[in-house]
Amino acid sequence: MYSSLNTNGNAAAFETGPVSGRFAAVYSEVQNSRIDHALPLPSVLRNPFKVVEGPPSSAAGNPDEIAKLFLNLFGQPSAMLVPNEADSLRSDLKLKIGVVLSGGQAPGGHNVISGIFDYLQDRAKGSILYGFRGGPAGIMKCKYIELNADYIYPYRNQGGFDMICSGRDKIETPEQFKQAEETAVKLDLDGLVVIGGDDSNTNACLLAENFRGKNLKTRVVGCPKTIDGDLKCKEVPTSFGFDTACKIYAEMIGNVMIDARSTGKYYHFVRLMGRAASHITLECALQTQPNITIIGEEVAAKKQTLKNVTDYMVDVICKRAELGYNYGVILIPEGLIDFIPEVQQLIAELNEILAHDVVDEDGIWKKKLTNQSLKLFEFLPQAIQEQLMLERDPHGNVQVAKIETEKMLIQMVETELEKRKQEGSYKGHFKGQSHFFGYEGRCGLPTNFDASYCYALGYGAAALLHSGKTGLISSVGNLGAPVEEWTVGGTALTSLMDVERRHGKFKPVIKKAMVELEGAPFKKFASVREDWALKNCYISPGPIQFVGPSSNAVSHTLLLELGAQA
Amino acid sequence: MYSSLNTNGNAAAFETGPVSGRFAAVYSEVQNSRIDHALPLPSVLRNPFKVVEGPPSSAAGNPDEIAKLFLNLFGQPSAMLVPNEADSLRSDLKLKIGVVLSGGQAPGGHNVISGIFDYLQDRAKGSILYGFRGGPAGIMKCKYIELNADYIYPYRNQGGFDMICSGRDKIETPEQFKQAEETAVKLDLDGLVVIGGDDSNTNACLLAENFRGKNLKTRVVGCPKTIDGDLKCKEVPTSFGFDTACKIYAEMIGNVMIDARSTGKYYHFVRLMGRAASHITLECALQTQPNITIIGEEVAAKKQTLKNVTDYMVDVICKRAELGYNYGVILIPEGLIDFIPEVQQLIAELNEILAHDVVDEDGIWKKKLTNQSLKLFEFLPQAIQEQLMLERDPHGNVQVAKIETEKMLIQMVETELEKRKQEGSYKGHFKGQSHFFGYEGRCGLPTNFDASYCYALGYGAAALLHSGKTGLISSVGNLGAPVEEWTVGGTALTSLMDVERRHGKFKPVIKKAMVELEGAPFKKFASVREDWALKNCYISPGPIQFVGPSSNAVSHTLLLELGAQA
Repeated sequence: MYSSLNTNGNAAAFETGPVSGRFAAVYSEVQNSRIDHALPLPSVLRNPFKVVEGPPSSAAGNPDEIAKLFLNLFGQPSAMLVPNEADSLRSDLKLKIGVVLSGGQAPGGHNVISGIFDYLQDRAKGSILYGFRGGPAGIMKCKYIELNADYIYPYRNQGGFDMICSGRDKIETPEQFKQAEETAVKLDLDGLVVIGGDDSNTNACLLAENFRGKNLKTRVVGCPKTIDGDLKCKEVPTSFGFDTACKIYAEMIGNVMIDARSTGKYYHFVRLMGRAASHITLECALQTQPNITIIGEEVAAKKQTLKNVTDYMVDVICKRAELGYNYGVILIPEGLIDFIPEVQQLIAELNEILAHDVVDEDGIWKKKLTNQSLKLFEFLPQAIQEQLMLERDPHGNVQVAKIETEKMLIQMVETELEKRKQEGSYKGHFKGQSHFFGYEGRCGLPTNFDASYCYALGYGAAALLHSGKTGLISSVGNLGAPVEEWTVGGTALTSLMDVERRHGKFKPVIKKAMVELEGAPFKKFASVREDWALKNCYISPGPIQFVGPSSNAVSHTLLLELGAQA
Repeated sequence: MYSSLNTNGNAAAFETGPVSGRFAAVYSEVQNSRIDHALPLPSVLRNPFKVVEGPPSSAAGNPDEIAKLFLNLFGQPSAMLVPNEADSLRSDLKLKIGVVLSGGQAPGGHNVISGIFDYLQDRAKGSILYGFRGGPAGIMKCKYIELNADYIYPYRNQGGFDMICSGRDKIETPEQFKQAEETAVKLDLDGLVVIGGDDSNTNACLLAENFRGKNLKTRVVGCPKTIDGDLKCKEVPTSFGFDTACKIYAEMIGNVMIDARSTGKYYHFVRLMGRAASHITLECALQTQPNITIIGEEVAAKKQTLKNVTDYMVDVICKRAELGYNYGVILIPEGLIDFIPEVQQLIAELNEILAHDVVDEDGIWKKKLTNQSLKLFEFLPQAIQEQLMLERDPHGNVQVAKIETEKMLIQMVETELEKRKQEGSYKGHFKGQSHFFGYEGRCGLPTNFDASYCYALGYGAAALLHSGKTGLISSVGNLGAPVEEWTVGGTALTSLMDVERRHGKFKPVIKKAMVELEGAPFKKFASVREDWALKNCYISPGPIQFVGPSSNAVSHTLLLELGAQA
């Protein structure tokens, strides 16, 4: 029990800044109960272990180029922790470790940090853990806080990233690498844990290579974080946060489904976070069994147009109307329109025009669009046209999150249904309701799965640093089994990499893991979606439970992928 | 355990219509676990009881007019169930009871029906329960289903209204009353339970009066349903569904708060369902402690303008920016703009113009607006202007739910902040994110409180009908105590009524219970909101738990109101 918690509610001490900690925070009963939730550890971490190495690794693609980019690290083997008669690492080593959160929030980040901290307490007593504040910028500016037991305690099993906060800066330029080196030297760092997504882990590996090249002692290990679920491979079966976020969205979708069935008059168009890949949408579909689910990767593979997507929806809606159902639930991935080739083309042209030309009120600028793009642009509802012209992100990209795809599709479906009504092929009535579930899921209380997974990731990452490893991503496997049977190790980050050509140079990238159309989760979905379309097979998962039924459930995606591997 | 549940997920039997039942439904583990959740009953209902009467009642206002409108029922006493040595009601009576769901969904409706059914099974074996389908229209058209144990079983403790579905029709005209009589006679009904909000309970009383006047044996009892929480009085401390809906919204708000604090760069504008009253917004504020909360009733009482509301927000945002906080969470009631006198005036004028005039493209119609209204109309962002002109509900009212107040306020706040920036009084940065939480909360799995409360309401309603009572609303009290100590009875519906003059006639109405600015919940909020504004006192309630911590918590509103009464 967190004794200094103030449950009065109106006398919380004044916080002095965004990372002043939760010492004075007011906690709900559920938050409070989670603090002392006992986290199981994989048995290999509870007992003496040694680190064994696998065979030399290669790269996900273009190994020759990756080898040139990582002269020191390319080819290094993965590491695996295995039981040993006695501990193989010196417990009298006092390590100085830094940790940083990079990018968007994902439930469980605090537990990764707790895991690192507890490892150091348990196995390298007297070590120091620095938390870099506000993401990679904290490394570059040497802004940090020394984390101790009291500071960490109220964040255990809690959502959010506010223990040290995160940021989206990148360590990219030679000057920035220099700054990172200076911090590593100044703090005498033995190791650094980078908690982040694909980009951040690529960056972690570049940092590891750089430190190694400069003969610094600082090792770097990554941890797979993203609710989007698009950072995974055989050794890293899932990224943390995906489980919690999907369950939060699925709760809401399930509620909306019961509402749809009770009311009988609305089609709910639910857009779900996840820009680059549609894993969240697919997982939520598997959990809730909606009538229509659009998977961006399928749209792209089949080179579908917006009209195709609209027609698919309208066909289902018409068939349902014939069965007497004028309601339904439709899931749409946030990044849908990015997956549609004709839209990509339009956006590319718009990016070009907006970067170099004046957009005049009279629309003369539109003449610069190709015929196909102009036609598509004019076909879009006006509100969407305006959103496409809105401010760009720092990389000059259209901010897909700002485009209300769900509203656009409602309008397009309405228009098409009206047409079919006049043709006599549709006699139902249609009312669309739009939803966007995003921010609600990024900072929820981690599920038991994410809480345990993150704790093991952090604990394992510290073990890797303790054993002198660098350039690895913390890898916890066998996740379908009870926690005690989970495997723990590290995978060479270079083995996940390929190169992309940017500005005439090869850049290493960890490829985003997209929804595989031949993968088990999609195939399962594809095999039942026609049933779901016309029958009402809705499942309402209900709120996440921390004890009792389903409290230890694992995501469908993970289970299906593990099953297919087995 | 619901043995016929299909957990395979892809072989659910084909449903033949919206009220074909959940026999073939696929349930999540949590849904499944809830079916057999044992519901506690107040001890008075578990033991022999008798029904005692209170003193004659009056009306909430204009008793003389109410007396004229309810010649048979006016002044009747309330009823209270009290322990007795033996049961006072004949258990060999075989009753025929109808039940109807009226209006929008609220979590717990299925449990009211279960409660009625179980009462009949327990205390009047051999009775029949008819569920009228699709709301009051089901009564008028005599569309019903006979409810039996198997049919009801899968709906126990489940959200939604899909057991018999609901509807928004009203029994109003003499022809409609005639139809209701015909159904009552045809089915030989001893009683009818109307589960609904203020309007539906007014209607229930008119039906009771009508049946009594026609010497029909059919008695009518109401049950207080609405997530909005605006149907309550001393004897009916809360309406069902409010507890669950608020906890669902509060979970989401809590998550968004942690996100806001972690990210440090967004102001989240959260609009919450509840058009006529701001109880939901107030309850969610008490549960989560946001920086800014707008309560419609206060805005109305202080005759605030949209500019006043915007300025209040901007003042807080500026002060927070000085403290280094460029983030926050703001709660807004769905019906906010309805509470603003100048907006009400504008809407009234628009209603008039839209009903009688042509709205021309050139805007000549605007000349019909008063100066003040024209000024306000032109002051509104264009998207809102368009929404104000959108289709009306069947009563000709602007559809407030369609007006995206949260987006409107973001735009207005942005504009004002820009002004202050230029004046030099604001140096922060502002990004707004909008949310609307509504449908997600109406059909969630009922909390333990709502599940038990509804079960007692239904069980008690059947007892009232069994004892021959009519024109009462089922009243379960002492809700701050453990369930076994809850009181059970019925309150004369006429005692909740006042009259309103409509079309030159007096109409009886149960006045909506608004947020009382002198009530304990608002006063509590008002006493701490300045702290919440500048400090960050966020509470994240987390997902609703069915076992363990907070699983039996009662809403703050209810507790504070009970405390003030005590």
